[in-house]
Amino acid sequence: MQRITHTFRPATESNSVRRYFPILDWSKSYSRDTATSDLVAALIVTIMLIPQSLAYALLAGLPAEVGLYASILPLVIYAVFGTSRTLAVGPVAVASLMTAAAVGKLAAMGTPEYYGAAIALAFLSGVMLLGMGLLRLGFVANFLSHPVISGFVTASGLIIAAGQIPHLLGIKASGKNLLDLLGQISENISNINAFTVLIGASAIGFLFWSRKYLKDWLLARHFDPRLANVLTRAAPVAAVIVTTLVTAAFGLNSHGVAIVGDVPRGLPVPTLPPLDLALWSQIAVPALLIAVVGYVETISVAQTLAAKRRQRIDPDQELVALGACNIGSALSGGFPVTGGFSRSVVNFDAGAQTPAAGAFTAVGMALATVFLTPLLFFLPKATLAATIILAVLTLVDFGAIRRTLAYSRTDGTAMIATILVTLAFGVESGILAGVALSLFLHLYRTSRPHVAIVGQVPGTEHFRNIDRHAVITAADVLTVRVDESLYFPNARFLEDFIQTRVAANPDIRHLVLMFPAVNEVDSSALESLEAINEMLHASGVTLHLSEVKGPVMDRLRRSPFITDLTGEVFLTQYDAMVFLAPELTAKTLAACRRDTVRSSA
Amino acid sequence: MQRITHTFRPATESNSVRRYFPILDWSKSYSRDTATSDLVAALIVTIMLIPQSLAYALLAGLPAEVGLYASILPLVIYAVFGTSRTLAVGPVAVASLMTAAAVGKLAAMGTPEYYGAAIALAFLSGVMLLGMGLLRLGFVANFLSHPVISGFVTASGLIIAAGQIPHLLGIKASGKNLLDLLGQISENISNINAFTVLIGASAIGFLFWSRKYLKDWLLARHFDPRLANVLTRAAPVAAVIVTTLVTAAFGLNSHGVAIVGDVPRGLPVPTLPPLDLALWSQIAVPALLIAVVGYVETISVAQTLAAKRRQRIDPDQELVALGACNIGSALSGGFPVTGGFSRSVVNFDAGAQTPAAGAFTAVGMALATVFLTPLLFFLPKATLAATIILAVLTLVDFGAIRRTLAYSRTDGTAMIATILVTLAFGVESGILAGVALSLFLHLYRTSRPHVAIVGQVPGTEHFRNIDRHAVITAADVLTVRVDESLYFPNARFLEDFIQTRVAANPDIRHLVLMFPAVNEVDSSALESLEAINEMLHASGVTLHLSEVKGPVMDRLRRSPFITDLTGEVFLTQYDAMVFLAPELTAKTLAACRRDTVRSSA
Repeated sequence: MQRITHTFRPATESNSVRRYFPILDWSKSYSRDTATSDLVAALIVTIMLIPQSLAYALLAGLPAEVGLYASILPLVIYAVFGTSRTLAVGPVAVASLMTAAAVGKLAAMGTPEYYGAAIALAFLSGVMLLGMGLLRLGFVANFLSHPVISGFVTASGLIIAAGQIPHLLGIKASGKNLLDLLGQISENISNINAFTVLIGASAIGFLFWSRKYLKDWLLARHFDPRLANVLTRAAPVAAVIVTTLVTAAFGLNSHGVAIVGDVPRGLPVPTLPPLDLALWSQIAVPALLIAVVGYVETISVAQTLAAKRRQRIDPDQELVALGACNIGSALSGGFPVTGGFSRSVVNFDAGAQTPAAGAFTAVGMALATVFLTPLLFFLPKATLAATIILAVLTLVDFGAIRRTLAYSRTDGTAMIATILVTLAFGVESGILAGVALSLFLHLYRTSRPHVAIVGQVPGTEHFRNIDRHAVITAADVLTVRVDESLYFPNARFLEDFIQTRVAANPDIRHLVLMFPAVNEVDSSALESLEAINEMLHASGVTLHLSEVKGPVMDRLRRSPFITDLTGEVFLTQYDAMVFLAPELTAKTLAACRRDTVRSSA
Repeated sequence: MQRITHTFRPATESNSVRRYFPILDWSKSYSRDTATSDLVAALIVTIMLIPQSLAYALLAGLPAEVGLYASILPLVIYAVFGTSRTLAVGPVAVASLMTAAAVGKLAAMGTPEYYGAAIALAFLSGVMLLGMGLLRLGFVANFLSHPVISGFVTASGLIIAAGQIPHLLGIKASGKNLLDLLGQISENISNINAFTVLIGASAIGFLFWSRKYLKDWLLARHFDPRLANVLTRAAPVAAVIVTTLVTAAFGLNSHGVAIVGDVPRGLPVPTLPPLDLALWSQIAVPALLIAVVGYVETISVAQTLAAKRRQRIDPDQELVALGACNIGSALSGGFPVTGGFSRSVVNFDAGAQTPAAGAFTAVGMALATVFLTPLLFFLPKATLAATIILAVLTLVDFGAIRRTLAYSRTDGTAMIATILVTLAFGVESGILAGVALSLFLHLYRTSRPHVAIVGQVPGTEHFRNIDRHAVITAADVLTVRVDESLYFPNARFLEDFIQTRVAANPDIRHLVLMFPAVNEVDSSALESLEAINEMLHASGVTLHLSEVKGPVMDRLRRSPFITDLTGEVFLTQYDAMVFLAPELTAKTLAACRRDTVRSSA
């Protein structure tokens, strides 16, 4: 045990260079052991990332190589700026869907304008994130409540999975929303291509099986657990290799199997986003939504993983890092990137120790763009569709609806509303509706602060809610304990509450507002207090305050309220009662009065 | 003194008919004495309202008689539905300006489309208010903070006053914003009409003088104080009569003095708002803004006045009443109405006892439309402009900026921003910017809940902030007291706070979250608590809760959190310390332990 005399404060870096470049922290102690761990993790993540990056580029409506480009420079940049040791950034499913939704409204898929808009989107998202980070506005991510995010991700997963069905069947269909898409699929169902279905079904079957059973199967055959792990992660790569070879061997592309085709070989070249103000204003809202949604996902993953090793994430620096990653992605011909959940978990489990693992992954991806791309010519799109479906089905969480509803009806309703609006009207409407609903519910709740009428607990100096405790009150004194800070959304409530009580009880001569839990009184609430004081004065009631916190009192003294106050400010509620109802307190005086427990007003 | 055993609850009317028709309450006991008081008040308000209603109609860009129409049926309707005994509804300056801004974008002034849009605006505002009232959504008015409303009203007053200058000078000028208007005035300054300036200047001079000195002048001449009061209120009417007579006598209208001209005689005829969906969707936002701003003004005045006589206002019923008034205004050819501040104060001071005074005022206004309108032909517009300027200058309150800044820098900044945006971009942008800024600041504040690390006050069972008190703590136990409800805007903050503290102090083995002030834990905060539990578990720290309120505990039990919790839930923080650090508490055990003060978990 110890006597604490110092004060805990958030760690403030004396050196702001080190705050913005976390690499300076971890690189000092970088050792050969750490490097080995990072390299192993990087190998596993690279194997996982190659098919994913191709698939997510196609999901965003972009050429496959764009996915590779988005998996090189951003990873290097994160290694420099990121505060998480294990976060793996790159293309992810939800951001890719949001990119397709945003860019699809502005240009036709496959055109240079479409690609340019996707690059501009990454750039603008990055600038917004960077700006928010430099202004330390990390709290904007709080505007998205958990039920809204969870509902949005579930709905996005469903939309993405449904969008892959045409690729699996070899038919053409696309829709503004889920119903439209399913309608088009059922119309074109007669055009399905048997070879495509065969490839797609085999790939899905194999991927499902390998996710569930491959590791156990390998372990039962006495594989080293670490190798079994790597091989399981490599299942999508195996599917890619086998289906590509089969397609090439039998020339299935001439039998209607859609293939990836020519993928330009080589590293990305520096690209400038289109400098078109009209375009930028059109993508401003989607860019902000991608930025915020991506940031929420990133920070959640990063904090979860950091906690397991008692490491710390700086939420504001993560904004800077993610912003720089997206700007980097745009400048190297990529599209929006965020921290991916499953990929980061794999990175962590594989033993990554520092962000250098990400930089090594980038090297792996760069090698892939140089050497692997010619081999991807015969890769069937159905295989990538199967990869995507397997990946996004982990996002769909119907159980969360039940759990949330069981815990809170309003939160559950917000979640269901977000899901339904996303499915019916698309991702942007969905997330905006969710945010609006969350804010509305939040303001509704905070507009009704918790207040209680209190009385004295017999034999003590304590005051409790008259509805829950057997307490003593004086007929002419009404004591109202306010259990929340007072600011504009709830200021009027207090006015109304007091007016109702005073109008209902003509005996009242003194009203004491007990402020032990009031941490702030804003200007609106101050005006309400002034109005309450005046209103009570007009009806012959004196207003007193008790247990006002120091900072609140300091501020109130800067206004005329304290001089205009008709009554007194008491250090404790007990003092107030001794003064206002001495006959009451004399009888019930606590046997053992202790000054140490007095409130510090 | 008494022992309170019953519970205070808001008065719930068993009879919902009586809730929606407050007239049933006060009409029962309506006496001859009350009627006399109401009639006197009605007379004074009518005298005040005649020039005001004409002036505000012109301010809204509408024919003068529309102001009279808006002062008849709405007043009768308020007498039936309103809960305030003394509120005077009718055309007011700010709503008239907002009407002109909204309708001016859609049609040219003087056209039937312009008039139709103004009627539709009143109707739609009314429907919105009525809907919010029936859904009991009075809390939406809380979205407008006092600084924003105050800044908006000041800026509107300046815009209105500046907009009257051309009428006073007899020149033509109008502008999108204040700068534009002032620029046009200075361009056309050479076209001023000497007669108009003479009339305007005399009217302003007389009105200023009569407001400041007329009452004292009359009292010094031994007038009855009551009569002196009525005569002072009648000063604008005197200005109207004198300038009208002078204009008529000298035929000044043929010398360039703008006059009101032909005002149709007779009562308003029933009117249907244009049933044009495109129009309605264009005016939806302004209608909502007028509804909310008008409601805030109405409820503030009503509560201030009601408090003086210990009467009660029902905020939700006031929405219903104001909604019905606006629908009534639209159906009788009027424009948006709200409860006016100065007019209600006059009504109150003049002794109005019931809403019947409003109905009597309506009769007076109806008589005016039938008999007075022909006499208004030669009324100079400059006189009405002078009336408006005098009325709105009371709205302009620069002192409020200084006072608000002195009290709170953020609130003062919000106020200044609202004023500047309103002046530069108009009323709609101004109020929207103010609301957005208020919400942003509110979310920013609530995203940082007050939390304190606490220790035991020696010799007691009390725990206080280690930064403010000399307290005792155990080296391996960290106790964090959360001083606010936990919901999505602040949930992440707690996660980050705890992660930082635990990462900074490797000795910690137990973390106690003390919840005496937590009234709610929403789904997002629950997920954060689960994440904190998991994160602490991963780093070898046990999580405990203490002093959890009953309703919060009931709800937490509906989730898996309590079963997953690695530690215990303690009734009191003292119990927690007895269990977690017995050697500490044994030494400092309070001399006088009382079970009655224990928290009710």
